[in-house]
Amino acid sequence: MTTTNKSAIILCSGGLDSTTVMAMAKNEGYSLYSLSFRYGQRHETELRQARKVSDLFKVEKQMIIDLDFAKIGGSALTDKTDIPKNRNLEEASKEIPATYVPARNTVFLSYALAWAEVLEISDIFIGVNAVDYSGYPDCRPEYIRAFEAMARLATRAGVEGRKIKIRVPLIQMTKAEIIKKGISLGIDYSITHSCYDPSAEGMACGNCDSCRLRLKGFREAGLADPAGYSD
Amino acid sequence: MTTTNKSAIILCSGGLDSTTVMAMAKNEGYSLYSLSFRYGQRHETELRQARKVSDLFKVEKQMIIDLDFAKIGGSALTDKTDIPKNRNLEEASKEIPATYVPARNTVFLSYALAWAEVLEISDIFIGVNAVDYSGYPDCRPEYIRAFEAMARLATRAGVEGRKIKIRVPLIQMTKAEIIKKGISLGIDYSITHSCYDPSAEGMACGNCDSCRLRLKGFREAGLADPAGYSD
Repeated sequence: MTTTNKSAIILCSGGLDSTTVMAMAKNEGYSLYSLSFRYGQRHETELRQARKVSDLFKVEKQMIIDLDFAKIGGSALTDKTDIPKNRNLEEASKEIPATYVPARNTVFLSYALAWAEVLEISDIFIGVNAVDYSGYPDCRPEYIRAFEAMARLATRAGVEGRKIKIRVPLIQMTKAEIIKKGISLGIDYSITHSCYDPSAEGMACGNCDSCRLRLKGFREAGLADPAGYSD
Repeated sequence: MTTTNKSAIILCSGGLDSTTVMAMAKNEGYSLYSLSFRYGQRHETELRQARKVSDLFKVEKQMIIDLDFAKIGGSALTDKTDIPKNRNLEEASKEIPATYVPARNTVFLSYALAWAEVLEISDIFIGVNAVDYSGYPDCRPEYIRAFEAMARLATRAGVEGRKIKIRVPLIQMTKAEIIKKGISLGIDYSITHSCYDPSAEGMACGNCDSCRLRLKGFREAGLADPAGYSD
């Protein structure tokens, strides 16, 4: 099961951020292991995109984990609650929104850690962002450092002196900077998807926080967003 | 969804340790929310016991989460690998054994954290033990403190100034002390189960590390183990 020294697990949602992270890790010479999650009916489009992206980057392996999250509830992304639309992004970023999935990144990273133990991989990449983010507590740099410290104590890797690293190359970048970085690495963003509430055909809504952040990013980068929008 | 101030989530495997923890939390006056996991065919007996224990303690709610762990592999508890039997416990405790499930407690506690966010509960109890344990890195006190530090940054609770606490009342107790404590709280240990490799009828094997630790505990407490053993 042991991989080469230069392997990394990439948390892959098929969205703009995680696709950029995948391109960055590839560019650093890593062999890629893509990890995605199915945790609600709203995510089938996301998983289709994640598969496309993983194929494009020729990952060594793509793993899709089923998460029993809806049972726990507490989020518009897993409940039947309406997704907030057309919000002022500056106002929105001051509170924790309805789309916050409780402890989501902690659960995601815990699975990544489990897989990293089995594959003997030290590097886990996640596309969290603390600048143009939506007010989620588990996107902050101090959270990531605390997870990393915990991960080093949680694992066989830690006991044996191998240091788990949680890599967050986007954490201090604006959405426009992320887009420019991705384009410089040759990403065709028409294959990525960021919407919280896509149509049955997989078209982005254009109005949820995630779509609005993405559109603002393209605007600020002076580029047109190649994604398909419903309106 | 908000619970009373004095509520706690208890990680419940139906085993000796988590049952004792549940009795201790109940004795402290907590309303109990029991959380168990299904993550391999070997655990149906464990879940039957967890249900019995949760009923006995009249928990407010019992949650059973399906974990997609077997896909990740790397453990005799989820793979087809043989469970080690009849090992010298002192020798065994010096290495990480085949029954180690990679990052298991981290995944368990992450789900507990998610549920705690939704219920607005601050106290999570887990029956980990660093004395008579089986060499798992994620049973050490320093790991638990690191998880707690991470949890406070990961959550809405933390942002709002409510401190998540990971309670590990057994962490410095010997198995014999745990058993004596449980008996003083009125636990009938015949309902608990600790075996890694029970028979189809749910009888404990008596020879895996977990059974041997348990039997040693009863012996040192000067008591007979009321659990059913196959031989």
